[in-house]
This record gives sequence, structure tokens and C-alpha cells, in this order.
Amino acid sequence: MRLAVFDDFRIGVVDGDSVRDVTSVVPTIFDEWPEQRMNWLIRNWASAQSAVAIAEGGVRSLSDVALRAPNPAPPQVFAIPANYRAHLGEIGDRSITTGGRTARDVGFFLKAAGSVSGPADGIELPAGSTRRFDHECELAVVMASGGRNIPRAEAMSHVFGYSALVDLTMRIDPGEHEEDRSLRKSFSTFTPVGPWLMTADEVGEVDTLRSSLSVNGEVRQGAQMSDMIVGIAEAVELISSVVEIKPGDLIASGTPKGVGPVRPGDEVVIEIDRIGAMRLAVSEGAPAPRPF
Amino acid sequence: MRLAVFDDFRIGVVDGDSVRDVTSVVPTIFDEWPEQRMNWLIRNWASAQSAVAIAEGGVRSLSDVALRAPNPAPPQVFAIPANYRAHLGEIGDRSITTGGRTARDVGFFLKAAGSVSGPADGIELPAGSTRRFDHECELAVVMASGGRNIPRAEAMSHVFGYSALVDLTMRIDPGEHEEDRSLRKSFSTFTPVGPWLMTADEVGEVDTLRSSLSVNGEVRQGAQMSDMIVGIAEAVELISSVVEIKPGDLIASGTPKGVGPVRPGDEVVIEIDRIGAMRLAVSEGAPAPRPF
Repeated sequence: MRLAVFDDFRIGVVDGDSVRDVTSVVPTIFDEWPEQRMNWLIRNWASAQSAVAIAEGGVRSLSDVALRAPNPAPPQVFAIPANYRAHLGEIGDRSITTGGRTARDVGFFLKAAGSVSGPADGIELPAGSTRRFDHECELAVVMASGGRNIPRAEAMSHVFGYSALVDLTMRIDPGEHEEDRSLRKSFSTFTPVGPWLMTADEVGEVDTLRSSLSVNGEVRQGAQMSDMIVGIAEAVELISSVVEIKPGDLIASGTPKGVGPVRPGDEVVIEIDRIGAMRLAVSEGAPAPRPF
Repeated sequence: MRLAVFDDFRIGVVDGDSVRDVTSVVPTIFDEWPEQRMNWLIRNWASAQSAVAIAEGGVRSLSDVALRAPNPAPPQVFAIPANYRAHLGEIGDRSITTGGRTARDVGFFLKAAGSVSGPADGIELPAGSTRRFDHECELAVVMASGGRNIPRAEAMSHVFGYSALVDLTMRIDPGEHEEDRSLRKSFSTFTPVGPWLMTADEVGEVDTLRSSLSVNGEVRQGAQMSDMIVGIAEAVELISSVVEIKPGDLIASGTPKGVGPVRPGDEVVIEIDRIGAMRLAVSEGAPAPRPF
């Protein structure tokens, strides 16, 4: 099933070029707090799934709705750095190049939940900044059931679904600007996820999925998930050995080689087999009290 | 008003040595997802405050309840590193000592929401680890209303209340283990917050607050909030220049000098003027599939 969030965080099931509104399945108290609807649905999937299959809140053309992130308010956003051998040493990020360390050593880092956005939100770079902002092409794993100390052999049964994710990053500027990684990756719209999530039962074997990312039509990144150093099951084991995973959490898989800059006016397209393609317009955001 | 969360994430108002149960003010749908009750209450404070003042769900002795974090599921947890001049250079954390950078340069980092715990949960260190785990004595700011690009002059009106917070940190082990900072600070129970939150109207001027932290009765850290390099208002401006602050978010103020190790069997006490004291037992957690 392809589950989407659209317009004012309504919930829909995508079929072909249309989306069927199933928001009525979610309790109306979440009308006050609609970003939480998908977290509620994931937590209550076992009982709600049959209602989702038949709910009839109207069918809209996908081209007439604004697609948001398929889970717009994840409780936590984990990301795996240095997870493809061909990407190591590619960029000037000290935390990746020092001593040839990989995801297995560095573990994970966090992105702010508020950085998560959807296709209709585009990517907004900080106003007037002269810094470099890079795209990273990743698979998003949406977690179904949480837990602590999940062994690798059981990890995949905790996955709800998958989506495409671009991990935007403000690069360090050695000697000048060396903000913490979690700041550099947490600007609003720096975690576009979409175009929807595909439930795990319909994705099947993750290792065979291929991803690609292009900027203005030129392919910049492409990889097969089997090339990851730390696979999804190991990532779940690693994260849950540190802290409890919660239903609705996102895990970003890490990026393959080909990381490069984006600028206002660019169009970024990320596509993953059996999930879909997400198109993102890059623009400049509003001026901030503290410029970057 | 002193607002506490206790037992199965019930909401209480603390008066002297007792706590009055006001959980009935929160919609019953949150009985399925009780960690979110405080986020609902913060979001609806303007209309719910008068009901909280008179709700009568029974009065219990504080000594008979298990105190949880006053907001057990914050949407985001921001923390300010290198925020007291006397702490800079004290520890072997490369990200703090390089080039004498301060909070104004490094910005913020993130902790996982799942690391937040309360007085009754204590501090659990990873089982069998030989790493060093340090206490950091901090003020927790609980945000009322969110927003993007909040100017410094308006920032304090967005604060809901304050609490005491210990930022636990697994130190790097140069050349051997250099996990990302957000992992090293995100183990479950590595962000104890409590013993309750004091609403901003009753805390008054934050700069005059003094904090102290002791281990086994020996005072290790103490500071006045006016010694912070980046004060609360500037931190709100900085964070909201990057990403939207959400109601219920926590901001950890940064630690003064005196950071030091804790070990299983220790008792940590943190106290902040006009807020209260939180007592935390340190123990060893359950073995994990991926040991640290």
C-alpha cells in the first residue's frame, strides 16, 4: 500500500495517479494536531488497516494535491553516516575522513524532526548564505513498532515502510564555520521525504532496491542498497542498543558517492525502485535573525 | 505552578510534599499514548490552565509516586555546547577544544527524545562498558509556543517553564571510539529532567538562578545562569533561525565546569534555585546486542 500525507496533513492511499482520502480513520482530536495523524495510524495499524482499505473520503488527482512528508512529525530521525565505501573520503567532513572510519564506528547522528518536509515544500536554503549545501540520496525507513535492544535477526519485522529521502547538509568551512553536524543537517526542509511511503510488504527485498538522484536532469548519485556497509537490520540493532526506537521514527540509510551542491533555482529528483520519484524545487528561504 | 508527570505519565500539580492529579483535563484518547499528555497540555495551556487549577483527581504524597520527566516525549531536544567559558578546554572533546570555539560558533546539537527520563528512572549506563560517562549540570527550558525566526527580544515569551537536566555523555576515546556526539549523548536515561517543571511566571529572572550538581554528596558543579555565553533568548533565536521550534521542545542550556565521571552505585543530585532538586541513582543497564 502506498500511504501519502497531503494538503493539511490529510492521510491518503495512492493508486496510480490518484489519492483516496482516508483521514476519517484517524480520531478527530488530531484535527487540532494533524501532523500527528500518521504517528497515530502507524501505532494503530493492526486495527486500522482494514478501515483504511475501505475508507471513502473522496478521490483526488495526485496533481491537484500538495504532498507532504509521509510521516511529517517523526518522534526521532536517525541517520547513518559514512555508509558506502565509495563515499568515504569524498568530502571534506572531518568526521568522515579521519582514520577511514565507517558507519560501524561512527554509529548514527540525529536530524531535527522539524527539518522533515515533503515534495510540495521543496528545499529552502538559508537566505543570503555563501555556504555550500549538498544533496545526499538516501532510503528512508519508517519504523512500525519501537523497542530497545532489537537483535538484527528480528529487526526487519519492526519496519513499517520505506520512502525516498534527501539528506541536505551545510558543509563545514574549516577554520571559519564548524557547526555541529546535527545543526548543519537540521535546517527546515533539509530532510525531504516522499513522495509517499510504501509499506514493507510491498517493497520486499530491500537489498535489491536501486536509488538515483539527479540535479537539473543530470544524474549525480546512484546506488544499490546492498552496497551499504551497515544494512537496515544492523542499523536497527545499533540504534536500539543506544535508545528506544519509537513507532514512526525515521532512519536515513546514508548516502552513496556523488554528493554535490544545490543552488536556488535547481530541481532535484530522487527515485527509488518500487517506491517512486520525488521532485523538489530549490529556493532561498526567508531572512533569519541569525544568518548562516 | 509546579507541573509534574508521574507513574503511568499522569499529570500532577505539586504543592509542598504532595501532588494533585489533574490528568482528567487531558482528553482520554491520550490514555493510549500517555507520554503525549504534556505536549497536549502545553499546546492547549491557554484554555486548559483554569481547568488544571481546579481539577481534583486525588492528592498523593510525592514520596508515593514515581516521578517521570515533566515532558517525557519532547518533539525535539536541542542542547547548547561550550556555553560557559570556564568549561572550555576542560575536557578532551575535540569539538569543544579546537580553536577555542564557543556555543556561538558551534551552535547546537541534538539529543534523541528517547534519551529523556525522570527521577524515578535513574541513570542506566551501558552494560559492561569500559568507556567514561560524564555528568553535565544544565537548566532545561521547556518551550510553550513554537515558531521559526524568533527574534531575541521576543524569545522569552515563547518559554513555558524550566526544569533541571543532567546531560550524560559518553566520552570519545581518541583513535579508538569516536562516535558522533548525538549518539554519545542519546543513550536511554542520558537526559534526566526533573523533578518537575516550574512555569516561567513563577521562575522570574533566569539570569539570577544558580545550579549545583553533586555526586555521592560531593559538590562537582555549580554556576549562575548569567555566566552562560549564549543565554536562553539568544539560544531560541539561534535554534529558530535553523528550524521550527515546536511546543514542548526542550533546550538544554550547556554545562559549567566540573564535568566528571559517574559509575554504577553513584547518586547524582542536581538542584536549581526556585525549581527544585532531582536525585538520581546510577546503575548498569541490560546487555545490548551491540555493546559500547
